[in-house]
Amino acid sequence: MSGQLALGIDLGGTKLLVALVAEDGEVVASAQHATPERDRPVEDLMTAVVGAVQDLAQGREVAMVGLAAAGFVDPTRSRVVFAPHLAWRGDDVRADLADRLGLPVALDNDANCAALAEATYGAARGASSALMVTLGTGIGGALLLGGRLWRGANGMAGEFGHMEVERGGRECQCGRTGCWEQYCSGHEIARLAGQVPSVESGEGLARARREGDEAALRAHEVVGEWLGRGVANLVAAFDPAVVVVGGGAAAAGDMLLEPARRALADSLVAAEHRSLPVLVPAALGSLAGAVGATVLARREQA
Amino acid sequence: MSGQLALGIDLGGTKLLVALVAEDGEVVASAQHATPERDRPVEDLMTAVVGAVQDLAQGREVAMVGLAAAGFVDPTRSRVVFAPHLAWRGDDVRADLADRLGLPVALDNDANCAALAEATYGAARGASSALMVTLGTGIGGALLLGGRLWRGANGMAGEFGHMEVERGGRECQCGRTGCWEQYCSGHEIARLAGQVPSVESGEGLARARREGDEAALRAHEVVGEWLGRGVANLVAAFDPAVVVVGGGAAAAGDMLLEPARRALADSLVAAEHRSLPVLVPAALGSLAGAVGATVLARREQA
Repeated sequence: MSGQLALGIDLGGTKLLVALVAEDGEVVASAQHATPERDRPVEDLMTAVVGAVQDLAQGREVAMVGLAAAGFVDPTRSRVVFAPHLAWRGDDVRADLADRLGLPVALDNDANCAALAEATYGAARGASSALMVTLGTGIGGALLLGGRLWRGANGMAGEFGHMEVERGGRECQCGRTGCWEQYCSGHEIARLAGQVPSVESGEGLARARREGDEAALRAHEVVGEWLGRGVANLVAAFDPAVVVVGGGAAAAGDMLLEPARRALADSLVAAEHRSLPVLVPAALGSLAGAVGATVLARREQA
Repeated sequence: MSGQLALGIDLGGTKLLVALVAEDGEVVASAQHATPERDRPVEDLMTAVVGAVQDLAQGREVAMVGLAAAGFVDPTRSRVVFAPHLAWRGDDVRADLADRLGLPVALDNDANCAALAEATYGAARGASSALMVTLGTGIGGALLLGGRLWRGANGMAGEFGHMEVERGGRECQCGRTGCWEQYCSGHEIARLAGQVPSVESGEGLARARREGDEAALRAHEVVGEWLGRGVANLVAAFDPAVVVVGGGAAAAGDMLLEPARRALADSLVAAEHRSLPVLVPAALGSLAGAVGATVLARREQA
């Protein structure tokens, strides 16, 4: 362990994760709580976050806090503009949290934070450029250029899950059709494997994979192929050195990534005239968002 | 006119354009020649380029040269690795040309050069980020992020035309199916308008547009819609401030761009929660590649 401690928060639609992280990336302590239901008042959400932070920080000197939120963050990274699974609607979360904690707070969306963590301590470490694709309920995404996040003109870059991959295809919650995440997600693996998508289905799937369950194998192949096809489109446009696949589904490893690698090589233009990017699983697992939030907080205080 | 003169070369499969450009972007002189056929020896190609440069430079002091080539350029920007319509196959064009001309030479692919020109003097001037889509035989593309070209880990970023937009769709010359450029290109407009795609068909189309020809109008609408849908995918991923549409087809202006803008607004995720990028025609017309090559040459000498 080295240097000052930073505290990272990863706030998703169901889970509130907190981690105390040293400068070298070591996770000194972490805890998991339930996120208050979306229909509860905003105050409940903030109270839960502050409580989780104070519990974990107790008796230690924390220098700064980073918050990774599952939602759209404004370009100044102060407000959560919109979050399908959280109560915030334009709230100045950064200032409010800094005020309540008496500490500097940094804010970004969870996919960006996870990518920062992978770039700093994980699977994209040392890569000149990387694409991060996180498979969960849908697809989270982020772009890293020379070790820095590319956030876009509106802070909305990386919405890979809503690229259209099938004209007139499946309906998406976003109101459009044929979005990539309708074919490629952790939920879709669970659905194809005959399970009801849920937190528990992740464990069910892990067991099914271990037991060599045919339906589970086939589900990973189908979704893996869609993963490779969609990644091929992104590689044609962006040409990254590394593609990091995160989210619960990445725990399947090569069962998911091998079919994806094959589809990438088949689908990518001029694959025979270039080196293909390596397609690797995320290294930091479920704590990537919280750890990445501390990377962001450290950068802003540097 | 101001500062030193730079000479830009835009070498395409049929045309070899050269332009003398002042530091403020003013084109002092330009000329157009035919590119030697692809099956002629490499030496013929180099002789033609050198001849065109020396003709235009005669009696003036040229400080540096930039070459925009229609092909894949290696990451060090010295060699043309592969070019479907040119004789070069891995030749060190940069060193050879610098040697023959006795001047510093910069090299990049034509889409990147056109984007640099638009960013410096044209439609993307002052934009924090831009996407350039050039419609010709196929689709050329480039990404400007933070005012700099994003070339990718292999120098192969911007291959937008080979993103798959229709699973199992039309066959593409690249050997795959459903590539965007099979639905969205200058050639496709000509084909839909009932014309044989060629340089002449561009003029035929321009006339048909002026005359309000129904088939020409409909062709621009169909291709414009595909343009907007594909751009929506790229905007979801990169979130640029500006999208610049270049190539001969861009001369159609709003006849092509209005259907594209409508499709972009319809297809882009969370369009109602963000500002849409402006979708504008390229400002520099057919000289964009040559002018952009001089921008590159100036940067490398700065």
